[in-house]
Amino acid sequence: MKLVRFGAPGAEKPGILDRNGNVRDLSGHIPDLSGAHLAPAALAKLAAIDPASLPKAPEGVRLGPPVAGTHNFIAIGLNYADHAKETGQEIPTEPILFNKATTSICGPDDDVMIPRNSRHTDWECEIAFVIGARARYVEAKDWAKYIAGYCICNDVSERSFQSKRGGQWVKGKSAETFGPIGPWLVTPDEIADVGNLAMSLDVNGVRKQTGSTATMIFKIPDLLAYVTEFMVLEPGDIITTGTPPGVGTARKPKEFLNPGDVVELKIDGLGTQRQKVVPFAL
Amino acid sequence: MKLVRFGAPGAEKPGILDRNGNVRDLSGHIPDLSGAHLAPAALAKLAAIDPASLPKAPEGVRLGPPVAGTHNFIAIGLNYADHAKETGQEIPTEPILFNKATTSICGPDDDVMIPRNSRHTDWECEIAFVIGARARYVEAKDWAKYIAGYCICNDVSERSFQSKRGGQWVKGKSAETFGPIGPWLVTPDEIADVGNLAMSLDVNGVRKQTGSTATMIFKIPDLLAYVTEFMVLEPGDIITTGTPPGVGTARKPKEFLNPGDVVELKIDGLGTQRQKVVPFAL
Repeated sequence: MKLVRFGAPGAEKPGILDRNGNVRDLSGHIPDLSGAHLAPAALAKLAAIDPASLPKAPEGVRLGPPVAGTHNFIAIGLNYADHAKETGQEIPTEPILFNKATTSICGPDDDVMIPRNSRHTDWECEIAFVIGARARYVEAKDWAKYIAGYCICNDVSERSFQSKRGGQWVKGKSAETFGPIGPWLVTPDEIADVGNLAMSLDVNGVRKQTGSTATMIFKIPDLLAYVTEFMVLEPGDIITTGTPPGVGTARKPKEFLNPGDVVELKIDGLGTQRQKVVPFAL
Repeated sequence: MKLVRFGAPGAEKPGILDRNGNVRDLSGHIPDLSGAHLAPAALAKLAAIDPASLPKAPEGVRLGPPVAGTHNFIAIGLNYADHAKETGQEIPTEPILFNKATTSICGPDDDVMIPRNSRHTDWECEIAFVIGARARYVEAKDWAKYIAGYCICNDVSERSFQSKRGGQWVKGKSAETFGPIGPWLVTPDEIADVGNLAMSLDVNGVRKQTGSTATMIFKIPDLLAYVTEFMVLEPGDIITTGTPPGVGTARKPKEFLNPGDVVELKIDGLGTQRQKVVPFAL
């Protein structure tokens, strides 16, 4: 299934793509795509519905983030061997974890706002996984009981806030609109090999990131196990898993986002995100 | 007001202390003490209720964390001049921010569990503030529009996970039961000077931390302003503000918590927490 949330920000309804790619309205079946509706049994119920039997959503409707009510938005740092190399840092011996504020979450095509006093807003194309069942000291081999699906995440990052404002990356990862998620939450049965998906990110039509989940250092089931050594994850929590090479801060010369730029992200099987960059406004 | 949540974990009801310190049941007025009920206008409605008119909660009922539905649980590092000195680190020139997983939140007197593979679980007595209204680029002088109240937080920390597992403190701050909150959410009108409250923490009846909010480097209104430069805060979010001297890892020799230990935290006007430390169990 490709699950979505559609409608105005804060008032999204749950939906599902039909075989023609049209959004169909699931709100007659579930109130929202929040954690309680992401467990394997709940997803199995949704899978039994024929999308063609559901009302169509309005043509061109806005998509929101495809999961609601996230409490923990965790990110993995330097998780692609080729990206670690371009930043001049050593390949980590265990995953680096940091948080993004849940208030950074937005829809896949929403505008990305440059924060106040920012001159170093950067992009990061990533694959994220969404938790479907309470996860506590999980073993990697049991991942299918806990992962509801996958989606694209642009882990938008302010590099000065991240590294020049007194340690701990969360400062550079958390601004409003710094977490576009979606367009779809894609259930694992739709992805033949999550460890071999092509990824790309363009800015103004120019390719900046080209990568594949094949160069991830720590794979998704291992990341799930690792994170749950340190914390309990709840349904609806999002873990974004690091970015391949080509981020702005590692380019020569460095490049950062400016108002008017358009960023487009693609991952095989997970769709496309497209964000316009807008200036800071209170 | 001193607001509480009482009852079994996950099934708490909202309550309020009457003038004799009895818990009175607010569930006839609001469904829970979640973000939507913490705005100034919502709190004013609660303040107009005579607690004596409300049903009494059962004697000795468990208290849960006094706020529900937290999405962002942010902590400030090294925010007491005397604590920064004892850890041998420089006084920060701007606040250090890190996250605790929201799944670390528990009641003020709940057991604290040593995580699997932990040998360095430590204590930190802190004052936390709770957000009552969406806070975005807030000015310090406007704090009263955004802060719903204060409570004690034990920022329980695993020192090896925090600093020897690949950077970013969140790994050592997020285990299940690592965030006892409460006993009460105390509204600002009850606190004459939040910048001058005595704090203490005992382990097995022996004083370990003695401090005062007077030695905080960055004060609460300034912390609110600072955090909201980097992220939007939502009603129900919790910011815990750092600890005074006397943590286990800074003692000579170092001391850490073991199963059977009892930890007691007090802050003037905010009550007492008392946790028993228990061994890891799946």
